[in-house]
Formats: sequence, structure tokens, C-alpha cells
Amino acid sequence: MGFLSFEWDGRQTYGVRQDEGSYLEAPAAFREQFPDLKSVIAAGQLAGLKAAALAQGAVVPAGQARLLPVIPNPGKIFCVGLNYKSHVAEMKRPDADHPAIFVRFADSLAAADAALQRPAFSDRFDYEGELAIVIGKGGRHISQADAFDHVAGYACFNDGTVRDWQRHTHQWTPGKNFPVTGAFGPCLVPADEVGDVNALTLQTRLNGQIVQQASLDDLIFTIPVIVEYLSRFTPLAAGDVIATGTPGGVGDKRNPPLYMQDGDLVEVEITGLGILRNTVAQAA
Amino acid sequence: MGFLSFEWDGRQTYGVRQDEGSYLEAPAAFREQFPDLKSVIAAGQLAGLKAAALAQGAVVPAGQARLLPVIPNPGKIFCVGLNYKSHVAEMKRPDADHPAIFVRFADSLAAADAALQRPAFSDRFDYEGELAIVIGKGGRHISQADAFDHVAGYACFNDGTVRDWQRHTHQWTPGKNFPVTGAFGPCLVPADEVGDVNALTLQTRLNGQIVQQASLDDLIFTIPVIVEYLSRFTPLAAGDVIATGTPGGVGDKRNPPLYMQDGDLVEVEITGLGILRNTVAQAA
Repeated sequence: MGFLSFEWDGRQTYGVRQDEGSYLEAPAAFREQFPDLKSVIAAGQLAGLKAAALAQGAVVPAGQARLLPVIPNPGKIFCVGLNYKSHVAEMKRPDADHPAIFVRFADSLAAADAALQRPAFSDRFDYEGELAIVIGKGGRHISQADAFDHVAGYACFNDGTVRDWQRHTHQWTPGKNFPVTGAFGPCLVPADEVGDVNALTLQTRLNGQIVQQASLDDLIFTIPVIVEYLSRFTPLAAGDVIATGTPGGVGDKRNPPLYMQDGDLVEVEITGLGILRNTVAQAA
Repeated sequence: MGFLSFEWDGRQTYGVRQDEGSYLEAPAAFREQFPDLKSVIAAGQLAGLKAAALAQGAVVPAGQARLLPVIPNPGKIFCVGLNYKSHVAEMKRPDADHPAIFVRFADSLAAADAALQRPAFSDRFDYEGELAIVIGKGGRHISQADAFDHVAGYACFNDGTVRDWQRHTHQWTPGKNFPVTGAFGPCLVPADEVGDVNALTLQTRLNGQIVQQASLDDLIFTIPVIVEYLSRFTPLAAGDVIATGTPGGVGDKRNPPLYMQDGDLVEVEITGLGILRNTVAQAA
């Protein structure tokens, strides 16, 4: 069962996903205690949310709600670059001893079902299907052995990239931070329901065509390694997001290149985590 | 006159600096309306804060207060890399067509007079004296011609860098985000009191020895260019911080290298903006 953040009835709210067609909103008393999904995670109350929503949650037809990024307000959003051999190879990068880490601002996130915003002045808007980790228990200097104790769950991520702006210099910040380009959803699946992350497979489709396909077992820097590394230089907190990197097959390295066009449908699907669907539109 | 954020009498508060030895706290009624300096800036009320503090502010002996980073809670902190020819040369980097942009998290900031936290596992902790811009009026797609209308004021910045972690990969995030490494203060001087930024000079001193000296006129990418560039890819908001880059003379490129040691005193001084003083200590 997945957890969702969404707008409904004029408010930003959250709850659980019954199925593709309907959600259960967290009951009002629960929301008074925990104003958003991040605070539920921080309190270790995902199971409590599930129980409360199943017992007393209002049924929300999906068509009447508007999804938000799973965590609309993460404190920190980390992205790992070059974390699949297939992508390192197509980018012609050498092997590295450490994960390459860049940062997204929260306003660069997009919800599932939203239109990703291609800036009008670039025609090199690319997809990057990824697994996102949501931190549950925060901490510093987390060991690899303890890392999974700090993971609340997982979601699909599409690290939409404006390639020309990514390459303006060696620092990737600009190309990774245009508003509403990093899709994150549709829901958070708790770690205990996911089981062995290495058994998951990821697929990205552009207008139905498979453009990326990988096993999470292919990650160069595994989830424990990433969590340990990040927490060595910065404190992690509940609701922080780590996009773990994209496999080979990005549009930029195809011949001819395959960038996302206005009106396109892009999907990231990971076993058990649902399908993250987005269209593409020119930003206003 | 400079604006300050500080802890005093058990609360996080803010006000103006009378002189090195005393501050005037914003009166309670003012603080009820504007809970922090960022909200004062967002409301365009720096002049109102000055008037209110001078008329009715409690006198706070500096020795009884603990300074905070000028803006303790910026929404976005941008850093510009390689923005002085003298630093580009020592780093052996080619000229670039665009500013190199990386990001700091707010918890990496340090207040004036605080001890910068050198991680125990690195002996390559380096200073980088810089001019910081604080955004006043937010916006997107800000033109160079309008850029200064969006600047609330300026402060000194020391972009303390853990060099080995900066160079783990081509992305500089880790080495720039250790907690309490980026000093920001002591105060915000409003743009109208600064006048021509190009006339300012910057000096960094380590234990009294001048290690960096530059004119702000030497910036490769000027403030209008930086503001325009950033606002092309992400919205700027009141209280956002832009560290504009460091000149040549960093410790890492000296022969022999000159890294900051525990107990050192590092100072960044910019004409009219005061002196940003910090000691160095090993992080717990």
C-alpha cells in the first residue's frame, strides 16, 4: 500500500492509495497531529496512518484530487549521478571511488500526472528514470550496516534534466533545478513492503517505447553506501529524498538524440512502486 | 548600519548593530509582525526595522548575545565557483561562458564569532573569503538591468571547504556542505548604504596574515549576470543567499599548502561590511 500527498477539497493533505482510482485521506484528528506526510514519517507513524485511513479515512476519487510530489517539502534532496555502469559508459566517464552528489531544490519537484515543464529556451529536455529513497529516521555518520533502518520507503523518480544547462559548466545544478522537472511519485511504498531492493527492476518509457531498463542490483553505489556517504558530510532527516541515479538509455546519448517533446508521455515504473506518469509541456 | 540575527534571552531574534559592542533588538510588536529577518526583508521593511529598533529597541550587549548566520533560514543558498581570474588560474581551470553554481544547505552555515567545524577525518579544511548577496525582492527571469532592484544587501562569507571531500568527484556538494563550515556575517548591510559594489575590496586573513586580497571589480561574472543567470533556471525569493566566489590565494594552492588548523582565527573583511571572524575547531 502506498502513501500519497495530494490536494483535495481546497487543502494540501495526504493519505493512502486504495487503488489507482481512489485514495483514503488521513482522518482529521490524525492530520491535526501530523500536518503532512513528512511529519508522519518523522514520528514513525506510517503504520498508524495506514490503520487510521483504513478505519476512518474519507474516500477520495483520484479524479477529484491533484497529486503532489510524494514529499512536497523535503528538507534536502540529494541526487546521485553516474550510478549505473550502463550510464557511466554512455557518458564516457571513468569509474569513481565515491558517488557524485548534486542537489535539487524542492520547487524543482513535480507530482505524478503533472506536466513536466520544459523551459521555452531549451529543446534538450531529457528523462532519467530513478529509484528514490525517502529517509525515515534521521542521523549523522550512519553506518552501512544500519542504513536500511533509516529508510522509510521508496518511490519512482524522473530526474528531468535540461542537458544544455547541465553542461554550462562542470557543476550540474542549473540543468537539474528548473521548476517542475523532477517527477516524484505516485506514492511512497514503505520499506517493509518492498523487501529486497536489489530485486526491483526499473523501466522508463517514452510514448510507450522502452528507453531505459535496469535492475536495482546494478547500482554501482548501493543504498547502504549512499546513506553512509551522505550522512558523513551532512545530517539526514525524516523526509529527505535521495534519487539514486539513472541507468543507461538517456535520450541525450542516443543517435539521433531523443529529447522529450511537448505533449509526450513519459513513464517510470519500478516493481511494486507503481507507475510515475507525466506529460511534457512548455513552461509558461 | 547592519542588520543581525542573534540568540538572546533564550530566543532567536534579530535587530540592528549599533556598534561592535551592542545591538538593538527589534521591538516586540515588530517581531510579532515579522518573526525573523527574512520576513522583514520579504516585506521590504529593513528601513522600518531600523527606525523601530532605534526608537524602541532593547539594548543588547554583544557579549550577552550569540550571533546567528545573518539569515539563519534561507530558502536557497547558491555559491558561485571560479569567479575571480586569480582563482581560476590557481585552480588551472579554463575560462567559462557561464558561472559554475553549487548549492549549500542551511545547516552548513556558521555565524560570525562561531568556531568553524573541521571534520575530524580531514586535515584539508580551507578558507574562501567571499561577498554574499542577500535577495530582497524575489523573481524569475530577472534581467541584468533590473538585478540590483532584487538585492536587499550584502554580507561577508567564508565558504569553508573540505578540499578532499570537494574533490571526491567532479560535483562539489560534499566538500561544501559539512555542518557549520560556511560563515555568513556578521551583519547584512543594505544595498543603499553600500553604494557601488565594484568599489569594495575583500581581504581574508588567517591568524592575522593576509591570504586573499581582491577588488569586487575583479568578479568575472558580475552581480547582475549572476542574478540573471540563476533566475533563469530557478525562482529567487527574499532571503536567498548568493556567495559570489573567492579570489586567488586559497590555502590548498599554496606551496606548502596552508589549511586551517584547530584554534586558528580566520577573518574575512569587506569594505563597509565589517569583519567576519571565526575560529576553527574539530567537529565533535
